[in-house]
Amino acid sequence: MALFALATEDGHAEEFGVAAAVTTMVAGGCVLTTRGRPFQLKFRDATLLTVVAWVLVPAFAALPLIAHPVNLSLVDAYFEMVSGITTTGATVITGLDTHPASVLLWRSTTQWIGGIGIIGFAIVMLPFLKIGGMQLFRLEFTERSEKAMPRMRSIAVAVVEIYVTLTATCVVVYRLLGMTWFDALNHAMTTICTAGFSTHDASFAYFDSPALEWAAVVFMVLGALPFLALLRMARIGALQDRFDPQVVTFFSVLVILVGAFAVWLLTAKGLPAETALTKAAFNVVSIATTTGFTSTDYVLWGAFASAWFFALSFVGGCTGSTAGAIKIFRFKVMYAVVKQHIRHAIYPHIVAPIRYGRRVIPDEQAGSVGVFVFVYIAAFALVAVAMALLGLGAETSISIAASAIGNIGPGIGEVIGPAGNFSSLPDAAKVIMCLAMIMGRLEILAVLILLMPSFYR
Amino acid sequence: MALFALATEDGHAEEFGVAAAVTTMVAGGCVLTTRGRPFQLKFRDATLLTVVAWVLVPAFAALPLIAHPVNLSLVDAYFEMVSGITTTGATVITGLDTHPASVLLWRSTTQWIGGIGIIGFAIVMLPFLKIGGMQLFRLEFTERSEKAMPRMRSIAVAVVEIYVTLTATCVVVYRLLGMTWFDALNHAMTTICTAGFSTHDASFAYFDSPALEWAAVVFMVLGALPFLALLRMARIGALQDRFDPQVVTFFSVLVILVGAFAVWLLTAKGLPAETALTKAAFNVVSIATTTGFTSTDYVLWGAFASAWFFALSFVGGCTGSTAGAIKIFRFKVMYAVVKQHIRHAIYPHIVAPIRYGRRVIPDEQAGSVGVFVFVYIAAFALVAVAMALLGLGAETSISIAASAIGNIGPGIGEVIGPAGNFSSLPDAAKVIMCLAMIMGRLEILAVLILLMPSFYR
Repeated sequence: MALFALATEDGHAEEFGVAAAVTTMVAGGCVLTTRGRPFQLKFRDATLLTVVAWVLVPAFAALPLIAHPVNLSLVDAYFEMVSGITTTGATVITGLDTHPASVLLWRSTTQWIGGIGIIGFAIVMLPFLKIGGMQLFRLEFTERSEKAMPRMRSIAVAVVEIYVTLTATCVVVYRLLGMTWFDALNHAMTTICTAGFSTHDASFAYFDSPALEWAAVVFMVLGALPFLALLRMARIGALQDRFDPQVVTFFSVLVILVGAFAVWLLTAKGLPAETALTKAAFNVVSIATTTGFTSTDYVLWGAFASAWFFALSFVGGCTGSTAGAIKIFRFKVMYAVVKQHIRHAIYPHIVAPIRYGRRVIPDEQAGSVGVFVFVYIAAFALVAVAMALLGLGAETSISIAASAIGNIGPGIGEVIGPAGNFSSLPDAAKVIMCLAMIMGRLEILAVLILLMPSFYR
Repeated sequence: MALFALATEDGHAEEFGVAAAVTTMVAGGCVLTTRGRPFQLKFRDATLLTVVAWVLVPAFAALPLIAHPVNLSLVDAYFEMVSGITTTGATVITGLDTHPASVLLWRSTTQWIGGIGIIGFAIVMLPFLKIGGMQLFRLEFTERSEKAMPRMRSIAVAVVEIYVTLTATCVVVYRLLGMTWFDALNHAMTTICTAGFSTHDASFAYFDSPALEWAAVVFMVLGALPFLALLRMARIGALQDRFDPQVVTFFSVLVILVGAFAVWLLTAKGLPAETALTKAAFNVVSIATTTGFTSTDYVLWGAFASAWFFALSFVGGCTGSTAGAIKIFRFKVMYAVVKQHIRHAIYPHIVAPIRYGRRVIPDEQAGSVGVFVFVYIAAFALVAVAMALLGLGAETSISIAASAIGNIGPGIGEVIGPAGNFSSLPDAAKVIMCLAMIMGRLEILAVLILLMPSFYR
């Protein structure tokens, strides 16, 4: 519930007063009623708490947006804040450039807080839940023990330190490369959490600066790296020692994806080499890391670009980062599983364990990765059909579904493409998107658990 | 290689002579060189043989289509025959109604033979390959043993008997309900194998007969049932005894899908109740069983209908039938796996085996179902991106991919929708579709095995 308090302390302008007061009262009530309860990773309470937090926080965070200068409807305000807290970055606000600074800063802040929140969730909660293959990232201390709390606290402090340092560095770099301090702060906050809110309708296209785009590429990639791996690098300094194999795969995948798309821009679209590489790097990294900044309306590049960016919206960054979607380590595990499966078909009696880096993965964990991928695709299909049922076009429907569950932001097609905006969608579509964004953010299974009757017994 | 011989004996018109001669020579050569070799389910030979057969047979079957009255290009003719042998039903021929009867019958025959071929593959080969969860359907005798051959022969004979009986019944029913004998024969052959070639451009819309549509619904469903289960019903007569649980799920799923869509047609489109039910039953069953007959251009019903039929193209019928796509039993197993996974997250120490009907499934088999679903989706995504790369629209690209890999036939969108035709696609797209159709038909993994270097060691 600390999120409540954090989420309100940043109210800069007077119009945030009432909202802050209301929120503080409720939060205070929550803190008082829960104080004195020893912190134990009791699985059910923690799960319930997490889901409830991600549903309620946006409601409180939305209060300032319903008030005077923005005047959003209830659904729109909630949508905007769910998009913020889940680090999705889809917006229903048009004319961002004309909005008061406090509102813009508020939007960026929700994403920044949502980002650190999800890292905490990924590091502490998910491995404990034993879902989606996250057991792989279980730390020794997540088992209940005497030493658990001190170690967990020190890790939490270190992760927050890294997060703040990265953000501060990003602010300075953006400022040096030409942004105003205000733009630099806002964009830095939404870059590190791979979220993608901007202070301009045109997003990064407003600055029209390749240098800034490259800087964003670097910080989006950093934001999509596993923070525990960054921590280890910072602490131990030894790359080989327990270095997370997903990072290597992540970089290789990015290089291949950017390279392939740059070549296509160069040959099929005739862009100059430098522009092709910059545009490819920025847009591919932005979608693959689920950030969602745009510097070009890639939909105008035609059907292949649309299909490409649609496919990218399933990639995601590394686990333990702020990135959403399926994530690199799951593709890595699935690749190993498929390979082992085929080898097993050829040599039925061979014993070939599945490996992730140097570690051998138990079949049960590999299976749990498969379950996640299946549930992810199923949820995507359900949301897409629901969108189509609401009368949206086929392309828009599937794109909305992929973008919302992957916490990306822009999609393909005219309505919700990089040049589009989510404001024209029917309210029902926005509500379903809110659900999808929250489910996607909490790795789906954490929400599904709550739907099982046996959870409450 | 018996397929070669079978595939040529049906040449009715004089223009088939040369083609038959060429094919017979090659087939004869094959038979002579392989004769005397004892039939053993040696895994590598069998796999290689199957894949090669599905690639080569269409090439020979295509010979008559390159000749005089049809004059298709090489790619078009091969595409048409791959679509035939794999029981897909996508066609590049326009003006079917004006083509000679022999050509139309030839097309239907390839599908009918492809259908019985795939049942044999599913019953005999797949369980042996231990891929895609097909181990579940392994019969005791597929282990190498003295009794294997006689039992396998008797089952093969029985399955062919059922197949022929069903087709004959279907011919009579179609005739009684108003088709000409010729139309009845052709449509019966392409109904039982859930393939979908018609003798008219308008497909079932040509007949404009609800009675015929309902008859087709019944026979499409029969064709999508597991033939071994039909065999058991016919032999043992006891429904409970080892009755395949996928059949119950299959019927439930169909009833729900048809019902939901009928309600939508009734309320959103204002169709009269009877028409809504007929149109829903025919089109939903046609796509869900991967047949691909059409009686209405469902694309004209708007985005929801498009999304709905696109989603249906992943369903498929029962395993051991002529239907393609992911298939009901895999959804059933995945559902059980997800449920067990979530339960396991709530009660970490619970022992809850995964069940398929009354049987307990080893984790390894459940995992292998997951691998199949993952590979299926990955193959779909790859083909879709390739199509977009060739300049096709986003909607058309994903629809082609789903339709080809699922062996369905029509897709959504203007180009390849029920009213469309595949002839306008670029040759490269057709070649990729041929690959996708063959891979989809052979359950993907059987083809992937051939790509592993260790297969040839």
